[in-house]
Amino acid sequence: MRTPAELAAAAQANLEPAHGDFFAGGAGQERTVRGNEAAFEARRIVPRVLRGVGERDLRTTLLGTEMSMPLLLSPTAFHRLAHPSGEEGTAGAAAAEGVVMVVSMAATQPIERIAATGAALWFQLYPQPDAEFEKHVVGRAEKAGCRALVVTVDSPVYGRRERDLRNGFTDLPPGLACENMRDADGRPRDIAMDPALTWNVVGRLRALTGLPIVLKGVLHPADARIAADRVDAILVSNHGGRQLDGTIATLDALPAVVAAVEGRIPVLLDGGVRRGTDILTALALGADAVGIGRPVVWALAAGGPAGVRDLLAHLRGDLDHVLALAGAKRPADLTADLIV
Amino acid sequence: MRTPAELAAAAQANLEPAHGDFFAGGAGQERTVRGNEAAFEARRIVPRVLRGVGERDLRTTLLGTEMSMPLLLSPTAFHRLAHPSGEEGTAGAAAAEGVVMVVSMAATQPIERIAATGAALWFQLYPQPDAEFEKHVVGRAEKAGCRALVVTVDSPVYGRRERDLRNGFTDLPPGLACENMRDADGRPRDIAMDPALTWNVVGRLRALTGLPIVLKGVLHPADARIAADRVDAILVSNHGGRQLDGTIATLDALPAVVAAVEGRIPVLLDGGVRRGTDILTALALGADAVGIGRPVVWALAAGGPAGVRDLLAHLRGDLDHVLALAGAKRPADLTADLIV
Amino acid sequence: MRTPAELAAAAQANLEPAHGDFFAGGAGQERTVRGNEAAFEARRIVPRVLRGVGERDLRTTLLGTEMSMPLLLSPTAFHRLAHPSGEEGTAGAAAAEGVVMVVSMAATQPIERIAATGAALWFQLYPQPDAEFEKHVVGRAEKAGCRALVVTVDSPVYGRRERDLRNGFTDLPPGLACENMRDADGRPRDIAMDPALTWNVVGRLRALTGLPIVLKGVLHPADARIAADRVDAILVSNHGGRQLDGTIATLDALPAVVAAVEGRIPVLLDGGVRRGTDILTALALGADAVGIGRPVVWALAAGGPAGVRDLLAHLRGDLDHVLALAGAKRPADLTADLIV
Amino acid sequence: MRTPAELAAAAQANLEPAHGDFFAGGAGQERTVRGNEAAFEARRIVPRVLRGVGERDLRTTLLGTEMSMPLLLSPTAFHRLAHPSGEEGTAGAAAAEGVVMVVSMAATQPIERIAATGAALWFQLYPQPDAEFEKHVVGRAEKAGCRALVVTVDSPVYGRRERDLRNGFTDLPPGLACENMRDADGRPRDIAMDPALTWNVVGRLRALTGLPIVLKGVLHPADARIAADRVDAILVSNHGGRQLDGTIATLDALPAVVAAVEGRIPVLLDGGVRRGTDILTALALGADAVGIGRPVVWALAAGGPAGVRDLLAHLRGDLDHVLALAGAKRPADLTADLIV
Repeated sequence: MRTPAELAAAAQANLEPAHGDFFAGGAGQERTVRGNEAAFEARRIVPRVLRGVGERDLRTTLLGTEMSMPLLLSPTAFHRLAHPSGEEGTAGAAAAEGVVMVVSMAATQPIERIAATGAALWFQLYPQPDAEFEKHVVGRAEKAGCRALVVTVDSPVYGRRERDLRNGFTDLPPGLACENMRDADGRPRDIAMDPALTWNVVGRLRALTGLPIVLKGVLHPADARIAADRVDAILVSNHGGRQLDGTIATLDALPAVVAAVEGRIPVLLDGGVRRGTDILTALALGADAVGIGRPVVWALAAGGPAGVRDLLAHLRGDLDHVLALAGAKRPADLTADLIV
Repeated sequence: MRTPAELAAAAQANLEPAHGDFFAGGAGQERTVRGNEAAFEARRIVPRVLRGVGERDLRTTLLGTEMSMPLLLSPTAFHRLAHPSGEEGTAGAAAAEGVVMVVSMAATQPIERIAATGAALWFQLYPQPDAEFEKHVVGRAEKAGCRALVVTVDSPVYGRRERDLRNGFTDLPPGLACENMRDADGRPRDIAMDPALTWNVVGRLRALTGLPIVLKGVLHPADARIAADRVDAILVSNHGGRQLDGTIATLDALPAVVAAVEGRIPVLLDGGVRRGTDILTALALGADAVGIGRPVVWALAAGGPAGVRDLLAHLRGDLDHVLALAGAKRPADLTADLIV
Repeated sequence: MRTPAELAAAAQANLEPAHGDFFAGGAGQERTVRGNEAAFEARRIVPRVLRGVGERDLRTTLLGTEMSMPLLLSPTAFHRLAHPSGEEGTAGAAAAEGVVMVVSMAATQPIERIAATGAALWFQLYPQPDAEFEKHVVGRAEKAGCRALVVTVDSPVYGRRERDLRNGFTDLPPGLACENMRDADGRPRDIAMDPALTWNVVGRLRALTGLPIVLKGVLHPADARIAADRVDAILVSNHGGRQLDGTIATLDALPAVVAAVEGRIPVLLDGGVRRGTDILTALALGADAVGIGRPVVWALAAGGPAGVRDLLAHLRGDLDHVLALAGAKRPADLTADLIV
Repeated sequence: MRTPAELAAAAQANLEPAHGDFFAGGAGQERTVRGNEAAFEARRIVPRVLRGVGERDLRTTLLGTEMSMPLLLSPTAFHRLAHPSGEEGTAGAAAAEGVVMVVSMAATQPIERIAATGAALWFQLYPQPDAEFEKHVVGRAEKAGCRALVVTVDSPVYGRRERDLRNGFTDLPPGLACENMRDADGRPRDIAMDPALTWNVVGRLRALTGLPIVLKGVLHPADARIAADRVDAILVSNHGGRQLDGTIATLDALPAVVAAVEGRIPVLLDGGVRRGTDILTALALGADAVGIGRPVVWALAAGGPAGVRDLLAHLRGDLDHVLALAGAKRPADLTADLIV
């Protein structure tokens, strides 16, 4: 198995440079991009011994969705830029490996087609100021079988991504479009980011759908406390460092969020997760599952759907392996005292 | 927009090397020059979400002066070394962008000419041992319309700037002079630094002028406490690292100063502010506004008055942008819990 | 005397590259390999003066075994890969220098032959799921004169060592074998790692032998507390960073383990010990003795048995020297207040 | 004035490489050599303002000796290796600049000749096991006019200096000798280091001389506490990193020593002092004066006695300058709250 850096390099070799930059880059000086990974590097594991870990069991259920391990595919845009198989290819791999794929609102294939792979899907939503259109999009996702709505709240405005500005990367190439951003008449819409959003958006979405709502982009414990009263889960995320450069690393934000939530709802995390020990670390510090973003894109660009399957199988094996070495049989055995 | 480093490089290409060194350099090994910026790099932001930040309002009023954002131009010397338009050019840009310019006592144009741009000006003063001359200078600034006196107190003696010593940079080139350092008869004077100064200087200046007094160069909380009883604002500054090398970074000094002042007077800060997130960080930690020094000189040298306008417009846009991303509508919404 | 780095370089020059990598490498990104040494580098010594340290006495007794200094040879595999004299050569050097050698279960010579050198030996055991075979191995070690059983508990599964995977290093070259992994009929067996192991293994081994039991691989204070009730000593170890990459440095784990054990049993440590000051540091922080692994292999590869003797003599001299400089006459004089 | 690094480089150009290494080098990996300087780099100054520092006064009296500033020349060996003028040259510079020179027991000129310069001298002593010889040496120093005895206690054995071992530097070149290591008959003796020394040495020396006794090499607060009852001053020193590599930086050791001494005796410090801000930092943290070692040797090698005068004059000017900038008129105005 290639290391994360090797996988990224193999992907970049297959990508248009501007597209490689779009996937790899982040906001500003990319301090937060680097910081997410560095936060994992800074932690150390204090393993337990002789705990009878003969058969590990990684299976997890979140919001009623069963998954083969506490890992999900965080939403990433434009999979067809990475590989012709697009989101459908990614979803096929997720289905085969039994993990949830969170489909980006900026997916380049229709949700119905992605869902046809049989993958367990959640749908990522930027709340849209056009109420009618938002209702249409949410309805379509629900009808296609998505099992949760992942509502991104870290994007009142669009992050300043220096690489994209330099490359002049603003539009998808001809023939590609955000296929789930079409109105009832099939006309394309742009994704709107709405800085005026308040917590009222939760009620608005509850009125549209019975799907569980995951709030993506929560980092401050005060927001986590509010969220625990209103939504079904939170995803601790800084958008992979693509929105506000200088934002705290997600792993560093996790403990205070977990403490604020007091176990009332599941807490997920993405940002910087690259290896089994990263997953172990986040779980031990209180995450119920973690998401991966860029590695999925790299795997897709480097090896297509089979590459994504390899990645997921490898991560499952790696997590299983490090669980054993840390003295845990199940994710639930991981406790905060294992991490310093 | 160019990054701060690119802007500095573009400026250096237009400057005499010795002049570029004068602007860029600091005292001793320039530990404090680097430390000011590093202190901002070391902080991380914990943003809030869903706070309804649809329209941000950056306007700020300080000491009766309205400004379009909580940013002012800290005093920097010798603008005609940077660009023929000199301080007048800088002031024109400040006027156009609605920010306060603190005119250096070492300005290379008369305060009256600078004031004619219509910019909101404050005047920086090194208290002068010659009482008559000090009175003359202060009176001239007040008459020209300056709205506050920024009294530098971090310079009992002149800092040892290694670059200037090596370059032999001691005098302005022929034709350039400190135009506000002329006595009533128009004869040039040198700026005197007076190590014997005590807190009595405040009373002395109060007797000369009704302008509000800002004390520039306060870093120790004990001094901040004294100042809060005697002056109208303090500017937490280490003179851009140009006086005592090894001095604490201004951002690191800020929290104790803010605590000592207990809200009695405004607290400003300069040193190392380069980006919107830097401004956000200082405001969240208790500054009422921040000053920028070198970036203004770089912008002036690289692009003249238009360059300064671009810089200020960019910083306003950047601050607006990151306020939204951090969940703040106004500077006053920024609180210390947003920073770790 | 060569520095540790010079010794390693000299060894590598004599080794097949894949074998050099096997000895030098660790799991994953080798963060723990580097971390073990870095933890020693980060500590500083606060020496005492005028304590009358005219004649130092390094002798130590552990589990009834006398040793010339509080240093033992931690188990390392495959000495015949390093030098034709193999474990016998190493044991001869240990005997000559009066230190305990912990013979690896993966030794490439029979324990009887190693024991014939007269060295004080302890025997390292991976508990084997085949009870009969385990009994055979333990019995053979005891009969050969081994004085303690060092039971490795950090290896429920085999660590992922990237270098070995890249080199395809999986088997010993023809003619070499794990000579103590033969059953009663002389047939070779593979070393099994058993993830199902629990604390019951201690009782199982107690039933097989009266030898004192040292638990190797304890890092968590909760495990140390359990161990103090059940075994005769613990060896704080992360397997030289060869099992779970990201594991805490052993020196960083030591203080909490020592506190948990409350002096009830001896606490040993290996991982990153390279110099006299490293030994001093670990002893001051509560270790009763330390083990060295890679340096022994380097010395054997670089200079054969004489090289190992040189290394041990040098370390004894170095420890004696730094004890004097820190104001200690005996290991027992070293207290935690000497380390910051 | 050259920077410390430039001065060292200029000196090295004039020195035999092995002699340059002798002066520059330290024990082991020279972690403590680097650490002494790094400890100063890590501190930051929080200056005071408006304190009326018009005329600074650096004069200090220690153990009855007046000095022009709180700086002394720590003992360094073999000045004739650095410059033909030897210790006499150094002493002449010290006399001219009004600072105390601590003459090393390994000086290459007789104390009587050094004293003839009129410099204020203290004499450094390694206590000698030969009582008669020790009495002779101490008597000679006292008779020559030395005003204090600086007793080195950090050298129970001689430090392992890797550079000297590699260079084979063991003896002075022909014609050079330790001129104060001659017995009553003029026969040369070697300096003995005595690991058996205890606190009894203080009484032994009190019986030989009425000179004040300074204990050099105290780092542990427990030893400082003992010393405060028995000697007249302590010099916090790690022998410039030349004895026990890994020893705490002297500046890091200072605060606990100062607290332990509770003001009962003066506390001096050497190790890593290179600039005015270093002196300021040590004084603010509680030192009564500081010593410099290598810079004196560099100045002597680079510029002879005039070079040493330049160095001392520069340091006095630099200290005066930074005192003013920190808001202090006298060394006594420096308090611990100025340092973070």
